[in-house]
Amino acid sequence: MKIDILFYPEKLKNAEDKAVVVLDVLRATTTIATALAAGAEKIYPVSSIKDAFSLKKKISGALLGGERGGIKVPGFDLGNSPLEYQGLKGRTIILSSTNGTKTLKKAVSAKTLIAGSIVNAKAVADYLLKLNLDVVFMPSGTDSQFSLEDFAGAGYIISLLAEEKKVELSDQAYVSFELARINPPEEILTRSFHGQRLINLGFARDVEYCAKLNLLDVVPVGRLQEGRLVIESSRLFR
Amino acid sequence: MKIDILFYPEKLKNAEDKAVVVLDVLRATTTIATALAAGAEKIYPVSSIKDAFSLKKKISGALLGGERGGIKVPGFDLGNSPLEYQGLKGRTIILSSTNGTKTLKKAVSAKTLIAGSIVNAKAVADYLLKLNLDVVFMPSGTDSQFSLEDFAGAGYIISLLAEEKKVELSDQAYVSFELARINPPEEILTRSFHGQRLINLGFARDVEYCAKLNLLDVVPVGRLQEGRLVIESSRLFR
Repeated sequence: MKIDILFYPEKLKNAEDKAVVVLDVLRATTTIATALAAGAEKIYPVSSIKDAFSLKKKISGALLGGERGGIKVPGFDLGNSPLEYQGLKGRTIILSSTNGTKTLKKAVSAKTLIAGSIVNAKAVADYLLKLNLDVVFMPSGTDSQFSLEDFAGAGYIISLLAEEKKVELSDQAYVSFELARINPPEEILTRSFHGQRLINLGFARDVEYCAKLNLLDVVPVGRLQEGRLVIESSRLFR
Repeated sequence: MKIDILFYPEKLKNAEDKAVVVLDVLRATTTIATALAAGAEKIYPVSSIKDAFSLKKKISGALLGGERGGIKVPGFDLGNSPLEYQGLKGRTIILSSTNGTKTLKKAVSAKTLIAGSIVNAKAVADYLLKLNLDVVFMPSGTDSQFSLEDFAGAGYIISLLAEEKKVELSDQAYVSFELARINPPEEILTRSFHGQRLINLGFARDVEYCAKLNLLDVVPVGRLQEGRLVIESSRLFR
């Protein structure tokens, strides 16, 4: 199993036969995992706020979630805090965040597209072991900058893979593995540029939650449905 | 002292008031440090082989050094192996390598431009402490790909800075610092993609040499002289 990681959410190449794990640990992919674990049936990541409102008109009962600059969008039902995503049995969520949803859409060429985070690292690793494909981790970055928390999040998943299977790490994947091997998630998320920004915005509890390893047994898997990206729990495909 | 590092030899921005440390640990910047320690007076990094031959005609007694694809260029006096660069008192070297010399030329906008490597990590760190400027580390990469050995090399220099001074690390610089904190240079250079390539080309002794921490007390400093980049030992500026 060959494992690679990108430093930035750059253009994804030759992913047609690979599993691609998109991470936006703070907070979009953590929120997606949490929403599915709370019973949500489908999540539609959309890039713009306009698209979100327009899609809501077509899907009866859908909830709008997301943020701009870390803050809930006016008129939306939910922000981007995973702690808000509870009791969602059967609900559909339309989610628009600054970085994560955009990166997910960049990864649709993958054979299997997974939304990864620290809270579901073990579930994602187990799913990747079953798939047995080469893997590319794709961090969302913060406004196209390097994202320490996503890089480390990938490292935790790689550590779990390496415990079970012979993995062939690219030089970049080796760095993320080494980083995660010696540093606890909460320390990394708290020191990260984006973590500090969220703490300053009053979201310290979110940062703490997003650093909890292996809390949720859910694997969000994305696929195109009539040209639109939809994310559902992998339980449907197991 | 703020410290940042680039992942790739990308365009350098806002470096006019900073020290920029260019690294091509395998092997150009190690070779430059070794040549200066062996008495060479000036090193002219040039991008193309044509430029190298043309400059040699203007500088009486200059030696041509460098490689393409790891191998010595036909007609050159020396390759890019640091082990060849001995007994060079007063000599001028014209050096052209695949990645390192090109990256050095990209960094000429720096307030102070330094060629860093593992063999002179301590000397470079001491010099940076004296300069007391913010620092950007710039890896040369291998054909614009991520270079693990340059990233780790920067981490060793950062570790030495952090021992002496309060440093403010960007998220990227933190990752290189953490990587270097727990892994010995020889292990990293040997496992790196470029290290493996050199070993396969028969340069295992070069890889071993380039991983020797703090062997040389020399700091190669670059400046523009009549529009041309020249590298000399910092002893001249101390």
